[in-house]
Amino acid sequence: MYQSNYGREGFSHITIAGALAHGMKEVEVWLQTFGPGQRTPIHRHSCEEVFVVLKGKGTLLLGSSSMKYPGQPQEIPVFKNSTFSVPVNDPHQVWNSDEHEDLQVLVIISRPPVKIFTYDDWSVPHTAAKLKFPYFWDEDCLPAPKDEL
Amino acid sequence: MYQSNYGREGFSHITIAGALAHGMKEVEVWLQTFGPGQRTPIHRHSCEEVFVVLKGKGTLLLGSSSMKYPGQPQEIPVFKNSTFSVPVNDPHQVWNSDEHEDLQVLVIISRPPVKIFTYDDWSVPHTAAKLKFPYFWDEDCLPAPKDEL
Repeated sequence: MYQSNYGREGFSHITIAGALAHGMKEVEVWLQTFGPGQRTPIHRHSCEEVFVVLKGKGTLLLGSSSMKYPGQPQEIPVFKNSTFSVPVNDPHQVWNSDEHEDLQVLVIISRPPVKIFTYDDWSVPHTAAKLKFPYFWDEDCLPAPKDEL
Repeated sequence: MYQSNYGREGFSHITIAGALAHGMKEVEVWLQTFGPGQRTPIHRHSCEEVFVVLKGKGTLLLGSSSMKYPGQPQEIPVFKNSTFSVPVNDPHQVWNSDEHEDLQVLVIISRPPVKIFTYDDWSVPHTAAKLKFPYFWDEDCLPAPKDEL
C-alpha cells in the first residue's frame, strides 16, 4: 500500500482497498491524515462517501447542491469515533480545524474510481467546477497509454 | 447508533452507516467486536466486503465458490491495522482465534442491505446454504408489516 502526500504538505493518503490497485468494483477505502490546519479542496462527487474519524477532530464544511453554487457552507464539528456521510453530489471540504493534533480518517466511497469536481471557492457555480480524473492517487495505477508508433 | 449482540455471546454489532437506519444506498459500514474464540457463521453474500482491523488479531477462514461446497478453508491470519477483502460470493468465517484479546473490525459492504446465506459446516453444498434476510441487525429497522384487518 503506497503512501504519498500527492504534493500537499501536511497530508497523507493510502488507498487501502482500491479499484485500480486491488480490483475492487463497488467500494473503495482510503486512510487519510490531515495535519493541523490542512483541508481537502472544496469538491463534489456523485458517489456515496462515509468518514470514520480514527484520531483527532475537525470540521466538515458542507455546501448546497440545490442552489446554483455551493454557497455559505454549514460547519459541522467531527471528532474521534464519530462517523459522518456526505450526500451524493453535495460540495464539501474536510478541514482539520484543530491547531495541534492530526486528523485521521477512514474514507469509504462507492462507485470507484472517484471522479472529483473541484471548486476554487464556495461561490463557483456547480457547472464551472473543474473535473480532475483520474484523481491524484489513481494516476499512478492507470495503465500507461499505448505506444502509438 | 444501536448496539446489540443479537443473541450471540461475546459479540457486538453497531451499524454506523446503514441502508435501513441511515438511508445509505450503495455502501454500509459496521463496527463489530468479537470476544476471544468468537466466530461469525460460515456464510456468503453477493456483495463486496472489506475489513479493517482496529484491535486484536484473528483468522479469516476462506472457502471456495468454484466447487459445489466451500471445502477445507484457507486460514489467513489478520491483525491490527491490516485490511482484507472477501471476494464476492466466497464462503467465509471471521474468527477471533486469540485466547485473550477482543478482535474489533470495521466492515464495509456494497449493495446494502446484506443478504446472507449461512452454512452449518464447510461441506454443505452452496445450493443448500440458508438465506437469512433481513439479517438480524436489519430486522429492527424494517417497517412493520401493514395491518391487513
